[in-house]
Amino acid sequence: MKDFTSFNPTRVEFGADKEKQIGGYIAESGVKKVLLVYGSDRIKTDGLFDSVATSLQNSGIEFIELGGVQSNPVLSKVNEGIALAKEQNVDGVLAVGGGSVLDSSKAIAAGALYDGDVWDFFTFSAPLTQALPIFDIMTLAASGSEMNPSAVVTNEVTKQKFYIYSPAVFPKVSVINPELQKSVSKEYLVYSAVDVIAHSIEGYFTAIYHPDLTASYVEANIKTVIKTTETLLKNPQDLDARGEFAWAATNALNGTTTFGAEGVVYPNHMIEHAISALHNVPHGAGLSVVIPAWMKWYYKNNEAQFERFAKEIFGKSSALEGIEALENWFNKVGSPTRFSQFDIQESDLDAIAQNAHMNSHFFGLNEVYSAEIIEDILTLAL
Amino acid sequence: MKDFTSFNPTRVEFGADKEKQIGGYIAESGVKKVLLVYGSDRIKTDGLFDSVATSLQNSGIEFIELGGVQSNPVLSKVNEGIALAKEQNVDGVLAVGGGSVLDSSKAIAAGALYDGDVWDFFTFSAPLTQALPIFDIMTLAASGSEMNPSAVVTNEVTKQKFYIYSPAVFPKVSVINPELQKSVSKEYLVYSAVDVIAHSIEGYFTAIYHPDLTASYVEANIKTVIKTTETLLKNPQDLDARGEFAWAATNALNGTTTFGAEGVVYPNHMIEHAISALHNVPHGAGLSVVIPAWMKWYYKNNEAQFERFAKEIFGKSSALEGIEALENWFNKVGSPTRFSQFDIQESDLDAIAQNAHMNSHFFGLNEVYSAEIIEDILTLAL
Repeated sequence: MKDFTSFNPTRVEFGADKEKQIGGYIAESGVKKVLLVYGSDRIKTDGLFDSVATSLQNSGIEFIELGGVQSNPVLSKVNEGIALAKEQNVDGVLAVGGGSVLDSSKAIAAGALYDGDVWDFFTFSAPLTQALPIFDIMTLAASGSEMNPSAVVTNEVTKQKFYIYSPAVFPKVSVINPELQKSVSKEYLVYSAVDVIAHSIEGYFTAIYHPDLTASYVEANIKTVIKTTETLLKNPQDLDARGEFAWAATNALNGTTTFGAEGVVYPNHMIEHAISALHNVPHGAGLSVVIPAWMKWYYKNNEAQFERFAKEIFGKSSALEGIEALENWFNKVGSPTRFSQFDIQESDLDAIAQNAHMNSHFFGLNEVYSAEIIEDILTLAL
Repeated sequence: MKDFTSFNPTRVEFGADKEKQIGGYIAESGVKKVLLVYGSDRIKTDGLFDSVATSLQNSGIEFIELGGVQSNPVLSKVNEGIALAKEQNVDGVLAVGGGSVLDSSKAIAAGALYDGDVWDFFTFSAPLTQALPIFDIMTLAASGSEMNPSAVVTNEVTKQKFYIYSPAVFPKVSVINPELQKSVSKEYLVYSAVDVIAHSIEGYFTAIYHPDLTASYVEANIKTVIKTTETLLKNPQDLDARGEFAWAATNALNGTTTFGAEGVVYPNHMIEHAISALHNVPHGAGLSVVIPAWMKWYYKNNEAQFERFAKEIFGKSSALEGIEALENWFNKVGSPTRFSQFDIQESDLDAIAQNAHMNSHFFGLNEVYSAEIIEDILTLAL
């Protein structure tokens, strides 16, 4: 094990009807008035909004609404939220939705206490040291944002999909009720599965030292995601599977999969962020195109770990068979593995590679991942 | 997954030389004067005490010493610490040692802010809501106390080995430096391994519902403990193995192995506490006697899980073969599996069973575990 610090102050409230206690959780923190951030109006018709509003009212918590957050959340919406938060003097932010809603909420919570441009935090040109208290009710399990200090937002003007990272944006309380995730479409379930697998394998494959124990946690997560995704595609009502999927998603990016590892980097995320910044494809769908291509390009750098992956996850005996098995699984569950499935052409790859390389220093990857190398990787997914 | 709350505010500082920063960690919390609790005087000769004292002095933290905490820590020592903490007006407690030192420190931290008898917290006759801030430097990995809100102490007058449980006693900062654990004797390494396995399997076998994902984390922990114990018996200097062992120990009792499970109880701990309360055997040694006996008595209640254990941990195909393999492993590494190895006779079992049953309601086990049944279990270890 290499040196690490484990610190995670987020309280997760997992289980049935926990969203109905959100007002109490917020009141315990001394917060009086929240910005309630959400995506589509679906929560107004399926009863969730009413449950949340009732709980807030019962606990004497005022709230102001900000709806309309989209997948691949954008900076303009974040700025709209910051202006509203300041104008209305809210002292907390409540996200009701998936990773895009929560990530927007984290950025709003940070920007609400900052006089400058919130994008400064994404370019690491200003230190992010404080934010309004953040609460969330997750309607989609994928991003892991509910138990980590990070958020990803796209600046739609500069076409940069960047992240913030600061203990200030750990959520105070995250509600995960698998029941609320039953209505996720099969398409988004599969994209979520890919995202969780991506979070699990980045460290597993890239670390120059990855402890056996931590690697075993990664494998447990991936096997759970594969198994529960297949269960949920057949029976979306299976709450045990839905719950295990959600908890694997949380653990994939809360430190569990990287403690004690050395040299963990996120090349697949770096490359995918460029794709979705330029082409607005779902993050998970972009990842299932990037991952097999990246694996084929990379595996000889860490072949023993790729062989371990092949054996543990798919019962295969070689690195390449393991990569093929993962690609086949993406195909089987219906997540794309080729750019043609997005109508992205060979002629688009240069711009994606340039965009990814431009951001590579934020990922600590600028030395290895030249635009040319990134384009080589992308070409493997044509 | 069944409902649960995950909340763990302890910061773990894991790695080389982290103990040399303890003064800084304590100063960050605003604490000015600590009670420094330890066990034997070994830390005065091996350099650890000097390192810690220097770090405290450099950060302007005053300290008062309380040495002499023993394995199976006793209430009289805790009361001595409470009196000293009150008299000296310390505003924090620093444990330097293993689980016994930390558990004593937790009880002292709780008692220092209480006017009554600290034993009230162990009998749950007074609510434990506040404690002085607790810090620790672990020289032994076993108890998991460094990342949980519990502590076990023996009342040597009443012969009761009881526990406290309250968020108030989560350590603020726990230092785990595998280097400091290199000097643990082979005997105590093995007892520690048994304790970690015990913490991992209690929930795994007793839960009426145990999620696949959580069970896989348990199996990863146990496999790591078995593998690294064997490595360390051959080469006590292997720091990677020492580190993985330590992290498995922490994760065995910080929630990782029980999240989403329903009906987790601790019968092996309940029974062992009676043995070490009456006979002062090392906790891990007592557990390796109890566990195979309990498993043989219990396995038909949850045979599928015992078969899973047999297959995943030892590559065996039946519940009984798995139990036998674990017992054989205890024998192989030199942890006792029979009462005769402690010179405990058949005539002693009745008193142990009575003591365990007397405490069974604190474990939520009084309905099933009559003194007769406990004696039946104990008899299997003659």
